[in-house]
Order: sequence, then C-alpha cells, then structure tokens
Amino acid sequence: MHPTPASPVNFLLAAIEDTGRDARRGGYSRPVYSAAERDLREWFTAEASRRGLAVESDSNGILWAWWDLPGGSSGETGGQLSPEAERRGALVTGSHLDSVPGGGAFDGPLGVASALAAVDLLQAREKAGSLVRNRALAVAVFPEEEGSRFGVACLGSRLLAGTIEPARALALRDADGNTFADVARANGLDPDRMGRDEAALGRIGDFVELHVEQGRGLNTEEFMDAAGRGPAVAVGGSVLGHGRWRFSITGQGNHAGTTLMADRADPMVAAAQLIVAVRQAAAAQSGARATVGRLEPVPGGTNVIASRVDLWLDVRHPEDAVTAALVEKFHGQAQRIAAMEGCSVHLTEESYSGTVSFDAALQRSLEQSVARTVPGAPVLATGAGHDAGVLAARVPTGMLFVRNPSGISHSPEEYVEDDDAEAGVAALADALQDLL
Amino acid sequence: MHPTPASPVNFLLAAIEDTGRDARRGGYSRPVYSAAERDLREWFTAEASRRGLAVESDSNGILWAWWDLPGGSSGETGGQLSPEAERRGALVTGSHLDSVPGGGAFDGPLGVASALAAVDLLQAREKAGSLVRNRALAVAVFPEEEGSRFGVACLGSRLLAGTIEPARALALRDADGNTFADVARANGLDPDRMGRDEAALGRIGDFVELHVEQGRGLNTEEFMDAAGRGPAVAVGGSVLGHGRWRFSITGQGNHAGTTLMADRADPMVAAAQLIVAVRQAAAAQSGARATVGRLEPVPGGTNVIASRVDLWLDVRHPEDAVTAALVEKFHGQAQRIAAMEGCSVHLTEESYSGTVSFDAALQRSLEQSVARTVPGAPVLATGAGHDAGVLAARVPTGMLFVRNPSGISHSPEEYVEDDDAEAGVAALADALQDLL
Repeated sequence: MHPTPASPVNFLLAAIEDTGRDARRGGYSRPVYSAAERDLREWFTAEASRRGLAVESDSNGILWAWWDLPGGSSGETGGQLSPEAERRGALVTGSHLDSVPGGGAFDGPLGVASALAAVDLLQAREKAGSLVRNRALAVAVFPEEEGSRFGVACLGSRLLAGTIEPARALALRDADGNTFADVARANGLDPDRMGRDEAALGRIGDFVELHVEQGRGLNTEEFMDAAGRGPAVAVGGSVLGHGRWRFSITGQGNHAGTTLMADRADPMVAAAQLIVAVRQAAAAQSGARATVGRLEPVPGGTNVIASRVDLWLDVRHPEDAVTAALVEKFHGQAQRIAAMEGCSVHLTEESYSGTVSFDAALQRSLEQSVARTVPGAPVLATGAGHDAGVLAARVPTGMLFVRNPSGISHSPEEYVEDDDAEAGVAALADALQDLL
Repeated sequence: MHPTPASPVNFLLAAIEDTGRDARRGGYSRPVYSAAERDLREWFTAEASRRGLAVESDSNGILWAWWDLPGGSSGETGGQLSPEAERRGALVTGSHLDSVPGGGAFDGPLGVASALAAVDLLQAREKAGSLVRNRALAVAVFPEEEGSRFGVACLGSRLLAGTIEPARALALRDADGNTFADVARANGLDPDRMGRDEAALGRIGDFVELHVEQGRGLNTEEFMDAAGRGPAVAVGGSVLGHGRWRFSITGQGNHAGTTLMADRADPMVAAAQLIVAVRQAAAAQSGARATVGRLEPVPGGTNVIASRVDLWLDVRHPEDAVTAALVEKFHGQAQRIAAMEGCSVHLTEESYSGTVSFDAALQRSLEQSVARTVPGAPVLATGAGHDAGVLAARVPTGMLFVRNPSGISHSPEEYVEDDDAEAGVAALADALQDLL
C-alpha cells in the first residue's frame, strides 16, 4: 500500500508501521504477547476507545471492543437488550494482530483496521439517520492466530470454541522453553480460567472476518475485467483442511571432522531426503500443498553432526482423507529413510482442522451486500487457516478477502493496493449494516 | 568420567560441571564471551593464581598464566632472562574453554585442567629438587576455538598468528547480529589493538596442546592391548585440512496454504537436494568428510514457505586440492539445483585451513616423553581443528590426545575415563619437564 493517497485504513496502519519490524528477516515479527504485539493491543484499545467502544480482554486473552446499542450492552458489564436482539446475539467482526516471523503488514492488521474504519462509516451513517441498529457490534482481536510462538494456529479462537484442551494449550512451549501458561499468566490471564467460554460464545450472533487474500485467487483470468484487473473483494466459501505435524529425527551427534562418512547416523541427511520425498508426493497429488518451512538441527553447530533434527510439516487438502493418507505416507517414508540412515523418527500431530464451509445464510447475505460496491465479487475457497474457520464450529461465520495483487503472503513482500483496501472497508461496512 | 575415584583433573572439572549447562540440547553451551564462558575464565584465573601463576589477558583476549623462572619473567611485566632462555622462548601449554552448542565436558576444558594439574606435578617436582627449569612455562586459554558464536573456528589463535585480517574478524556477527568488535569491546578489549601480535608470538618457544581425542583413533585394533584396550594417550602428527562454507539459497517466501506446489520457489527443497548430493559425493571420495550441521530457514515459520535458507558446510580432506575440488563440485550442484527450483545460490567461504603437520623435532620429543608412561603411544592424525594447528604457522607446536572410548565428541555423550585423564596429565607433565 503506498503512503499516498491517504485513506482511512492506510492512516490506521501507518500508526503501527514501525511496530515489530524485523531487521534480520525483513517485514514484521509480532509473536503473541511479545512487546510488539502488546503495543499493537494498546494501539487497538486506544483506537477503539476513541470511537466510544468499550474494550475488554476475556479469559482467553481475546480483545472485544463493544459498540453497544443505545441504552444496552452486550459486554460483560450487562445491560438491557430487546428479546429480538438478545436472540440474535451481537454481530462481531475483527481479525488478529500477531504475525508470522518476518511477515507482511496486512495479514491480520488489515482486518482489524478495516473493522475500525467500518465502524467509522457506520457511526457516521447512524448519526445521519441512514443506519438503525438492531443489535450490538463488537470488534474482536484474537491472539496467536499464526501459531508462530506456541505452534498451534488460531490458539485464542480454539480455546474460546473449546476445540483444544486447555491443559494441552497451557503446556505448549515457545522456542525459549516458556509455557503458554506462564506467558499467559505474565500477561494478566488466569490459566485456570482459560478454555471454552460459553458466555462469550453466546454473545456472538454472527462473526465476519475481513482478511487479505493470501493467494492469487482474485487475479485469475475468469474474474478479471477488460483491463486485466481482478475484483477488489471476494466472499469466503470455505477454508481448506490443514494441519501441522512435527517430525523428530534422532541420530548420533558427533564431530564433523573425526567421524568417517561410513560411521555416521546423521539426522540432517535423513531430514533432507524426507523433504525431497514430501515435495514429490505433494506435487503428484492434485489439490495438495505440503511445506517444510521450519527446521531445527540440534545442537546446530557447523562442525557438529546433528544429534536430532526437528522439522515441521504443513499439509493441506480439501479432503480430510487425502490429507490423512498423505501424512501417513510421509510417516512411512520418514521411517524407511531414518532406518537406512541409522536414525529413528517420531511423529507428532500438533494441530488439524478439517475443511470448513462457512455458514450458507451468512455467505448469501455477504454476497448480496458486497455486490453493491464490488459487482462480480466471487466466492473463494482459501488455503489459509483463519479464526473464522475455527469459530465456524460454534457460531455462524463468514469472511471477506481483499485482493492481493502478487498473491504473496507470509512475506515482507505481501501487499495490498489502496483502492482495494478502501473497497474492502466499504464492502465490510455494507455487509455489517445489512446484518445489524 | 565418573565422579569417583577422585583425581586431580576430575576434581578441577567438577568445579565447572554446572557452568553453561544446556537444558534443551543437553551437555554444555559455552559460547565465547557468554556468561558461562566468562565464568570459566574467572575459574581459570582463580585456579592459576592459586598456583602462583601471573594471569593476564592479551590484546586478542587470550589468557596467559605465567609460571616464571625464579627471578625472571616472560610476561608483559618484563624481567631478566638468561640469553639461552631468551633464545628458546617460553614453553606454553593450554587449550580452550568455549564449547559447541550442546557440547561435551572435555573438548577444551580437559586440556586446560590437565595443564593446571601438570603444573601441580611440576611444582612438586621442583620443590623436591627433581626438576630444574631453564625457561618459563605458561598456560594459555584461547577464545572462540569452536567458532560457534562468530562462525570462524580458532578465532583467538588466528588473530594472534595473523592468519585472519582483523577487519574481517571484527565484522563477524553472532546469531543475534552483534559484531565481534562490539562484543570484544564489551569484554574490555580494544578492537583497534586486535590482530597479529609479534610480542606475544615472540614469547612462545613451543606450544603443546593436550586435547580429548575426537574420533576412535586410539581404539583401533592395531593399537589395542591383549585386553582389547587402546593406549590412553597419542601424540599428534597432523591436523586434517578443513574449512567452512555458507550457502545462502534464496527463493520466494510465501504462504504455505495458498501457494500451489507448481507456483513455488522453495529454497528448503533446494537445500534438501544439496544436502543429499553433498553426502553422496563425500561418501564416494576416499578420506573426505562433509557435513551440514547448521541450517537456518528464513523466516522459519511452519506455515511459511521460506524465502531463504542458509546452510553451513564443513568439508575436510588431507589434500587441499581435493577439498577445493569437492567444494567446487558442491557449488556447481547447488547452482543447478537452485536453478531447477527457481532459486538462486550464493556461496561464501567462511574459513579454510590446509592440512598442518606438527613440528617434527617437537613431535619426536613428545613421543619420547609419552613413551615413559604410555608405552606404545601412537602418532595420530586428527580430523578436528585446533589452536595448535593454527599456531603451527608461526611457532613449533605439538599435541597430545587422550583416549575417547566411544569416539563421540561435540555431543553431551563425549566421555573420558578417569584413568586415561590421569595418564594424560602424567604424560603432559613429563613432556613439559623434558622441554623445560
């Protein structure tokens, strides 16, 4: 996004453009509960408060900024709602502020900033008499969407929805060995109170998340106009099933200079063969994606044959059975390769989420609203995981995607054009208005 | 080494057995100028001072503990030496205290503790009248022998000997981005004064380093006694030529879920193919060793296709030309593989040391001395690099190796038996006495 022309989303994101920059990797590193992510939470709290929203952090560390109905409240502080509003629950939008290591400026923050900008539009419309609300609106910020610190993506929404056991979540460790329990406690949360939160779930009527598109889905030829430009916004149809698996390959650590090649049990050589095999099998399986983006040799010295290599495998496919079969195949290959190298292998599933279709009625409503500002906005399946995909197990959820011209994401090169960001805000505001 | 029976070396090493333990990797992580390595320097200074040695740190951060001749001094404080002693220079022994990440207890500290224990024996002999010294003795501790923090092994001895440009050394960075210049300055050194030190080199008459053997060289059948036990000590013959090269493979960072397999330029897949090719070529080349023990994907997120992978290659062979040809071959393979994956590759030589033969006269003297306590002690070539190998370019150097029953080193499992450690001290004391 260029610094000019100034636009509301651009203006909001400019305030955090120096927060969590990563000089080594480029882009941003904003792991959950780091100084950078805490600064972003403060920024969000201040921006929401400036708009008259009441901000609270719930027992799972999710931020909620409530724009209550006049005279009522859907927040924890209680209040008076009409029976109709009570029944429908609040309309919630939002996204996340944490990032992958060396990520872009838009993955997460675009949805949060667009929600705040949409609130500006809606508040102006209410003032002008063109919006009458029948229920409360909240902007939510979910912690650890990326799983880049504790390894499980969408950890905040999983805890809220009860799709991860609190005991398992609390025992997760970051790269420095800190448990999630300790880090949560240090950030003012009570580990004993974390987990499925029926009260908070009960307050959500519908959840709509706006997010930067993370592939080239809006740049395919079938959607392009005569000038070769894809539509600015898409409506989410489904989230591709995805999971994370950790392979620990153990060999014999030793001296790189004194150990003959024939005497080695080198887990790095085994890991390398596994990575090649994974790519080959994934490329041969239509619709599959398999990635090793994180690999850690232990101890990791140049003149040391590693004693262990941990590598993390990300696998996605629309059909859960295909994903399971692929992982099973990789496990078998890893065992054969490890045995040939005198190593052993241990496989751990860190997380898995099956393919999720968004709520059909909510999707239709979003399609109708978006069509007013972005005619021809398509429905897209996404290969990326999202909190909206996790919450779909408990409440009606839907998504809007803003065009990504290069398709690059999880990279400093991730990019959203100004016009598309503004179209996203307009579409989100219309969609929310139609649902309020 | 078992905690019992108590022996002088065991007793010395027991004092530092909790310093720099690495809970994650196991063993010890004692990078140069870390809190752990500084604690070890303090321990050494205190132990040397207790023996009446005068300890100083030189301009390259090398510690020297001087046992001067009665009435004379070879240290910086000056003093009166006989013309003969002046001509021969001091006899120096010692090793290093830094470790690889997750290393063993003996690699480095065994040589330092054995030197201190040998000083005890020699001081007792002098008191008893069975030792008359003709020159000063010093125990030296060299910083960054492993190169585990700044990437260049034997950095302290290379600076002293002038075999690395000070400007290049000072610009080296650790994993956190700190330059060696900044770290040296923070540890009381003046970067402008670092580099080849003729005064310090001129004081060294001979250098003898005792070190744990890092392979199974003393356990080969030809050296074993009737009980199947190899000799406790060997005399060093040569140091295998070795070097370190960094391959940076650059691709296109992207989202692991949204980027189709066919659209990827994944440097991890290229790195994996290179590792397999390196092992294959090294295994096919007699006498060669090639290792990738350190690999860092950037940014290193599970759900992120890496934008860059840095991997470090350690290659060793007795013939410099063969090593050069292997690295050239690996470079060509890396370029072909990277091109096929849509990536590019950049190769940097971080260090190279050709095969070094130790000083012939000093080696003969060591062989004669050691034979008194360890009959049949063989002469061994070592695949590991050592400060003695670097200093060989400037002064006569030699080495003693203490038996390693498993051959495992650079690992928490590295191990020396008590009896062998004591035999090493006895052999070192005799060797030093014969040279004093």
